[in-house]
Amino acid sequence: MAKRISEHYTEQLAKLKEQVLRMGGLAEAMTRQVVQALVRRDAALLPEVRAMETQVNQLHVEIDEACIEIIALRQPAAYDLRFVTAAMKIIIDLERIGDQAINILEAAEDLLGVPPLKPLIDIPRMGEIAQGMLKDALDAYVGGDDELAQRTILRDDSVDQLKDQVFRELLTYMTSDPSTIPRAMDLILVSRHLERIADHATNICEDVIFMVKGKDIRHQAPSKVE
Amino acid sequence: MAKRISEHYTEQLAKLKEQVLRMGGLAEAMTRQVVQALVRRDAALLPEVRAMETQVNQLHVEIDEACIEIIALRQPAAYDLRFVTAAMKIIIDLERIGDQAINILEAAEDLLGVPPLKPLIDIPRMGEIAQGMLKDALDAYVGGDDELAQRTILRDDSVDQLKDQVFRELLTYMTSDPSTIPRAMDLILVSRHLERIADHATNICEDVIFMVKGKDIRHQAPSKVE
Repeated sequence: MAKRISEHYTEQLAKLKEQVLRMGGLAEAMTRQVVQALVRRDAALLPEVRAMETQVNQLHVEIDEACIEIIALRQPAAYDLRFVTAAMKIIIDLERIGDQAINILEAAEDLLGVPPLKPLIDIPRMGEIAQGMLKDALDAYVGGDDELAQRTILRDDSVDQLKDQVFRELLTYMTSDPSTIPRAMDLILVSRHLERIADHATNICEDVIFMVKGKDIRHQAPSKVE
Repeated sequence: MAKRISEHYTEQLAKLKEQVLRMGGLAEAMTRQVVQALVRRDAALLPEVRAMETQVNQLHVEIDEACIEIIALRQPAAYDLRFVTAAMKIIIDLERIGDQAINILEAAEDLLGVPPLKPLIDIPRMGEIAQGMLKDALDAYVGGDDELAQRTILRDDSVDQLKDQVFRELLTYMTSDPSTIPRAMDLILVSRHLERIADHATNICEDVIFMVKGKDIRHQAPSKVE
C-alpha cells in the first residue's frame, strides 16, 4: 500500500491498463480454449480453463480495489476519471465472460462424455466472432479507439442471428429424434453462453465510446449510433 | 447542471439513493409482472413491462452520469466514495435484470399464443424468490444493512436448485412427447432468465457488503462469507 501510494500517478494508470488487458487476455483465452475443447473433443483442454477463471476472479478484485484507491487518493478528473470508471465497468463484463466460459465448460463436460450429435453447426463460428469482438473491444480500450468500438458493436447482430439459426436446427433434431434432446439442449445452451460473451464485448465497446467521447450511447437505437 | 452543482452534497447523495431505489423498484415490478402474465396467461400485462424497461434504461444513463459528476465535483472519500461506486455497479445489475425480464416477456409472447403445457412447475416459485431477493438487496442498500445482504445471498442456492429441477422435469416431457419441445424449451429458458435475475440480486448484495464493510467478499467460497 505504502509502495503503491508513492508510485507516480501515470504509472498507476499504466498499471491499471495493463492489468485490465491481462484480465481481458485471460477471458479471451478461456473463450477460445473451451470452444476448441468442444470442436476437438479434447477434455484435456478444460482444466486450464478453470485455472484461468481463478486468475480472472483474482484480477477482478485487485483491479476494482486499485480503481477505488486511484479515485480516492488521486481524485482524477475528465478523461482520467472516465478511464478509471470505464475500467471498473469493463472488469465486471470480463468477470462475467469468465462465468460464461465456465458454463460452456460444464456443458462440454457432458457433451464429451457421449457420442457427438454431429458437427457443431455454427457454434465454432459463433465462438470465433465472440472472441474476435472481445479482442477488438480490448484493443479499442487500450488505444482509446472509439471507431473500432463502434465497428465491433455492429458484429453483435451476426452472433444473434447464428444463435437463432443454431436453435432452429437443433429443434429439428430434437423433434425428429428425441434421443438427441439432452445433447441438443447442451448445444443450445452453449450457443446462448457464446451470445452472452458477445453481449459483454458489446458492453465493453460502449464503455470505451463513453470513455473517449464522454457521451453515453447506451439505450439508443443502432441507427443513432454514429 | 448549474442547478445541480449548487445543490448540497448530502442532497445529491440522497437523490442518488432515491433514484437507485426507483430503478430497483421498476426492475422488481418488471420481474413480478412478467411472471404474473405467464401464470395468469394474460398478455395484457406485457406492454407495461416493456414501458418499464424504457424507464429502467433511462435511469441507468441518468444515474451513471450523476455518479461521475459527484465523483468529479465532490471528490467523495471513504464510505461516500464506496456508496457512489456501489451505485454505479448496482445500476448495471438492475439494467440487466430489466433485460432478463424482457427475455422472459419474449418467451411469454410465444407461450401465451399456444395451449399451456401444464402448470408452470416451479417457475412461479423461482420468480417469487428472485423478486424477494431483489427487494431485500435493495433494502440492504438503502439501510446499509450488510447482514440482510449476507442472508439474501444464501437464497441464491435454492433458485439454482429449482432451475435444475425445472430442467429435469421438462426434459422428461420433451423426451416422452416431442410435440412439447418448443414450449418446454421456452420454459427452460424462462427458468434460466429467472436464475440470472437472482444472480444479479446476489451481485447487488455483494456490492452492499463491500460498501458497508469496505471488504471484498466476491470470489470466496460461501463458507468464508461470515
